[in-house]
Amino acid sequence: MKRTYISNICDGDNCKVQGFVENIRNKHTMAFIVVRDITGKIQITVNKTESPELVETINKITLESFITVEGKAVKNDYVKLNKIEILPVSISIDSIAEPLPIQPDASIDLKMDYRWLELRNRKNQLIFQVQTYITKVMRDFFLERNFLEIHSPKLIGAASESGSDVFELKYFDRKAFLSQSPQFYKQMAMASGFERIFEIGPVFRAEKSYTNKHTTEFTGFDVEMSCIESFNDIMDIEQELIVEVIKKVKEKFGDEIQELFNQEVIVPTVPFPTISLKDLYKELEEKYNYVLPDSEKGDLTTEAEKLSYKYVKETYNHEFLFVTNFSKDKRPFYHMRKDDIPQGYDLIWKGVEITTGSQREHRYDILKQQAEEKGLGEDVKFYTEFFRYGCPPHGGFGIGIDRLTMLFLGIGIKDVMFIFRGPNRLNP
Amino acid sequence: MKRTYISNICDGDNCKVQGFVENIRNKHTMAFIVVRDITGKIQITVNKTESPELVETINKITLESFITVEGKAVKNDYVKLNKIEILPVSISIDSIAEPLPIQPDASIDLKMDYRWLELRNRKNQLIFQVQTYITKVMRDFFLERNFLEIHSPKLIGAASESGSDVFELKYFDRKAFLSQSPQFYKQMAMASGFERIFEIGPVFRAEKSYTNKHTTEFTGFDVEMSCIESFNDIMDIEQELIVEVIKKVKEKFGDEIQELFNQEVIVPTVPFPTISLKDLYKELEEKYNYVLPDSEKGDLTTEAEKLSYKYVKETYNHEFLFVTNFSKDKRPFYHMRKDDIPQGYDLIWKGVEITTGSQREHRYDILKQQAEEKGLGEDVKFYTEFFRYGCPPHGGFGIGIDRLTMLFLGIGIKDVMFIFRGPNRLNP
Repeated sequence: MKRTYISNICDGDNCKVQGFVENIRNKHTMAFIVVRDITGKIQITVNKTESPELVETINKITLESFITVEGKAVKNDYVKLNKIEILPVSISIDSIAEPLPIQPDASIDLKMDYRWLELRNRKNQLIFQVQTYITKVMRDFFLERNFLEIHSPKLIGAASESGSDVFELKYFDRKAFLSQSPQFYKQMAMASGFERIFEIGPVFRAEKSYTNKHTTEFTGFDVEMSCIESFNDIMDIEQELIVEVIKKVKEKFGDEIQELFNQEVIVPTVPFPTISLKDLYKELEEKYNYVLPDSEKGDLTTEAEKLSYKYVKETYNHEFLFVTNFSKDKRPFYHMRKDDIPQGYDLIWKGVEITTGSQREHRYDILKQQAEEKGLGEDVKFYTEFFRYGCPPHGGFGIGIDRLTMLFLGIGIKDVMFIFRGPNRLNP
Repeated sequence: MKRTYISNICDGDNCKVQGFVENIRNKHTMAFIVVRDITGKIQITVNKTESPELVETINKITLESFITVEGKAVKNDYVKLNKIEILPVSISIDSIAEPLPIQPDASIDLKMDYRWLELRNRKNQLIFQVQTYITKVMRDFFLERNFLEIHSPKLIGAASESGSDVFELKYFDRKAFLSQSPQFYKQMAMASGFERIFEIGPVFRAEKSYTNKHTTEFTGFDVEMSCIESFNDIMDIEQELIVEVIKKVKEKFGDEIQELFNQEVIVPTVPFPTISLKDLYKELEEKYNYVLPDSEKGDLTTEAEKLSYKYVKETYNHEFLFVTNFSKDKRPFYHMRKDDIPQGYDLIWKGVEITTGSQREHRYDILKQQAEEKGLGEDVKFYTEFFRYGCPPHGGFGIGIDRLTMLFLGIGIKDVMFIFRGPNRLNP
């Protein structure tokens, strides 16, 4: 018999149900088993006197065992769960569960040790349905616009932007590094004449950060496109993307996100508010007495990021804010500059940076000089070579898929990742 | 002015064209420049007497520089290239190219050093259009069937299947390894109740192989699904997937693949021929006098793989062959066994293995015993734990995206990868 998903079961069906045992009440003459699959839960009701052949199996069933039940679905107004129950003709245990090693009040560390048990509920499964859908909508958006998908190497020969924060490994008889970003390679695709590309893949950061938004490995969604006129073209396409993603996620999962995560999914108006870094600090000081530490000048502090949410909400009733005109000292060497100002932006959603985007410097001589100014010579030589033999003007941005999902649902990075990786966490 | 892609230009258009300089003939009174973007090529024709202001720029233009041209498109039957040319009002050089470092007859190694130049032609760009499309069709196939997409960690705490062939790295004050396959984690998703998942991501193999189909990093497409009845369910869905992919690629790119790669894209009939390993060797011996070396017994040799193409073509007029009933000594410990026979298969396309699939052992005690038989204890303990607290029966398979693209186009692995990685190749 073919399996039926629980949510599809109707009164009168002869069906086969497969799922985890959510609950079992094994009484003298009756047994009630609640079975759960990814679509829902249903009660299996056994009259032990009428079905003595099932008793031996039922006595063996433990919580969270995986079982297969064949039987007839019947309406019963006394059953709390959807007023339907299954009267089984057969029950088999596919996999028996030992007593569970964690309780609901376990520490977050212990819960992470047993991540797969933690994930066995509707709320946690919704996270991955939402993330799957976000990624789908983003990919469709770019595929419809004729972007190519590339897969750039994660094993690289030179520590890319700086020697710090990079994982080093033994590569046969030499050293290699793990890619901190596909930045250099997505730009190589521009020099290859690919025109417009995106990439989805892991990004590795050897950072000793213990915040609720950092991790040593996450999934990046990176975009690069040729023949832009300025970084405004990049902001425009990102804004269009974000609106599309939020609109579609709201349509499909908005109600359930509200119900399970208590987060309203709000489709943003366009254009998103945009402000220069200097003006933002002026506003934050005037409105909220925020004073920027001297050491952080020219950059956006985490504190200011957070406050900017209050600012943009109060001033524009908006959740997003583009911040431009960073200091060149605080931006990578490959950002194009005009009058010494980096031609790029950060995009802040709900007070958290989700993107850095920019027009890139595509002229070999200037790029080389900007790299040297930052003290980067040999390490980026393989990269500056991409620009010696002709390259279109181009720009792009990157978004962390995990961080995006996190902000949709109002949860932390450890909750949103299928399996989290941090300086102290390499398992499971 | 907005840019127009070359393939969209029509007689009479005032347009802006941007692209690489494919050719330049700078004569006394006339100059002819062929510009190339991702959609095609067009000739820019300059009457230097009539447009003296363009001469200085034209004199600077080098081969493969990237330029922007504004002007009027006009029909001209004397122009070989589509009988259309652009009479420019302005030309600007966005990025000047130095003399090219490689010639068409350069060694493959030198060409790989300058991969981005090598990629600047229609044939190589088609590779990535085909690959982008293959991946899209595969993803859509699974998304339509309610599979979740996961991103499993590539940084792992224990060398997974065996200590060999794995890259080791320093992870803060301890060791970590690079994932050789998402196998264990896609099975964790089954223990998490995700039911059906796929993952696209890099796979790392520290193999010193120098064949035309091996690489140290490639992109894997991995699938896992719960509640199967046997590995035949896995073969069925993979077969359905393959037919869908080939059908769609043929529709969209079949003619161009034929023209540029001289490969016919053939939509396979279903069901694919299936044969047990023993019977295959019997056939190969009878038909082609192939004698299996004793040391390889129970496994499929590369030589037999190749010959199996001849066999399946001659016997079934088919390109695909499922091979079943491998020896348990030659299969991983996590394959389910029935009467001591691993419940899995290899899928061979045009004589090259593209997939291993199987039903997995989901019962903790048996799995643990099978691991121990292979001498795997502590290293896989984190993995066998996934099965202690209930797990559905499940199975899956993996396909290398690069290898699949390679077989579509009849080329080698170094040609098909955006950037190839091998034991001696870590650049660009």
